[in-house]
Amino acid sequence: MSGEETATSKAPRTERGKRTLRRLLDAAAAEFGERGYHEASISGITQRAGAALGTFYTYFDSKEQVFRALVDDMGRLTRQHIAERVTGSTDRLTAERLGLEAFIEFVREHKDLYRIVMEAQFVAEDAYLNYYKVFAAAYRRNLAQAAERGEIRPGHEEERAWALIGMSVFLGLRYAVWSDDQPAAEIATAAAELITYGLSPAAKPEGSS
Amino acid sequence: MSGEETATSKAPRTERGKRTLRRLLDAAAAEFGERGYHEASISGITQRAGAALGTFYTYFDSKEQVFRALVDDMGRLTRQHIAERVTGSTDRLTAERLGLEAFIEFVREHKDLYRIVMEAQFVAEDAYLNYYKVFAAAYRRNLAQAAERGEIRPGHEEERAWALIGMSVFLGLRYAVWSDDQPAAEIATAAAELITYGLSPAAKPEGSS
Repeated sequence: MSGEETATSKAPRTERGKRTLRRLLDAAAAEFGERGYHEASISGITQRAGAALGTFYTYFDSKEQVFRALVDDMGRLTRQHIAERVTGSTDRLTAERLGLEAFIEFVREHKDLYRIVMEAQFVAEDAYLNYYKVFAAAYRRNLAQAAERGEIRPGHEEERAWALIGMSVFLGLRYAVWSDDQPAAEIATAAAELITYGLSPAAKPEGSS
Repeated sequence: MSGEETATSKAPRTERGKRTLRRLLDAAAAEFGERGYHEASISGITQRAGAALGTFYTYFDSKEQVFRALVDDMGRLTRQHIAERVTGSTDRLTAERLGLEAFIEFVREHKDLYRIVMEAQFVAEDAYLNYYKVFAAAYRRNLAQAAERGEIRPGHEEERAWALIGMSVFLGLRYAVWSDDQPAAEIATAAAELITYGLSPAAKPEGSS
């Protein structure tokens, strides 16, 4: 998908450059997370990063550009975290449960970043749209492959992808951003039962867990 | 739930007052919807409503207060629209499908209002939280009652309520706000199949629709 390559116009080539970019993105996450987009400033970011203003402009042209880069970065980190936890799942329905558990834990550890993604809707709507489109494309692919393997019923990949993303986002809001006292595994198990068997009393085979 | 009564500190007592309040809320919806919270102004609202500034202050103390009232109003209108369409459903699973169809159609007709609710997260987080808490409370109640009647499997009402709300919100984003070319009934049918039977190939009885 687009966005990932274009957000940072001046990608670093050296290891040192990559570390500096990482430090700037982490500082931007802290600045935007604490102050919100409108109150955040480039000097706030460079101060947190312990970097000179000129260093910022080596990588970004504006506050909006570093914000866009951060939204993309957040998507990459989230997908990477989920992928690591889901690797080795024997089937799609197990992957759904583990992925949701991993997502809720990730949001709990990155509440500020989660807000940044949400705020992107009003600051850089295309970045927000792209963030979820990348997720949805991966989801569609996973669902289609699982259907081919006979692990799930085929069909409706697009609707299902967006429905399942919405589920995760709102369980993340409810159980990670607003309140985080319930074990993530418990929430994921409840949601996975819904994803696997739906609500119908006839759908879940007797004795299945 | 709280919020509905408190958002407008000066509720109108006469029919004429109620009409004026309605006109101000509609004007505020247009102003916030078009310009976003930060750019919107009280004078923009009164101009759209054809009302004097003093009239605004008869009902609201500030831009933030009219915004909160609008978020509550949006929730009421949405719930009312869904309730009307769902009335007479023979069971909860049919109600889920009709409710989702009604919701997508409602968002298509009120895209601006939808953005206002989303923006509330950054302008008045408690109003945003309350908006969804009211929905979740109603959902939990409906699910518990349906479980008692044997229409759905019992349990996990809280997780299910938030999962189903998230589903609706993201299907609304994808199929109403960002693109609205697919019939709402088609999307609702696909999502209702997921809600009823889940993804498991074993869950959906042969020949059931």
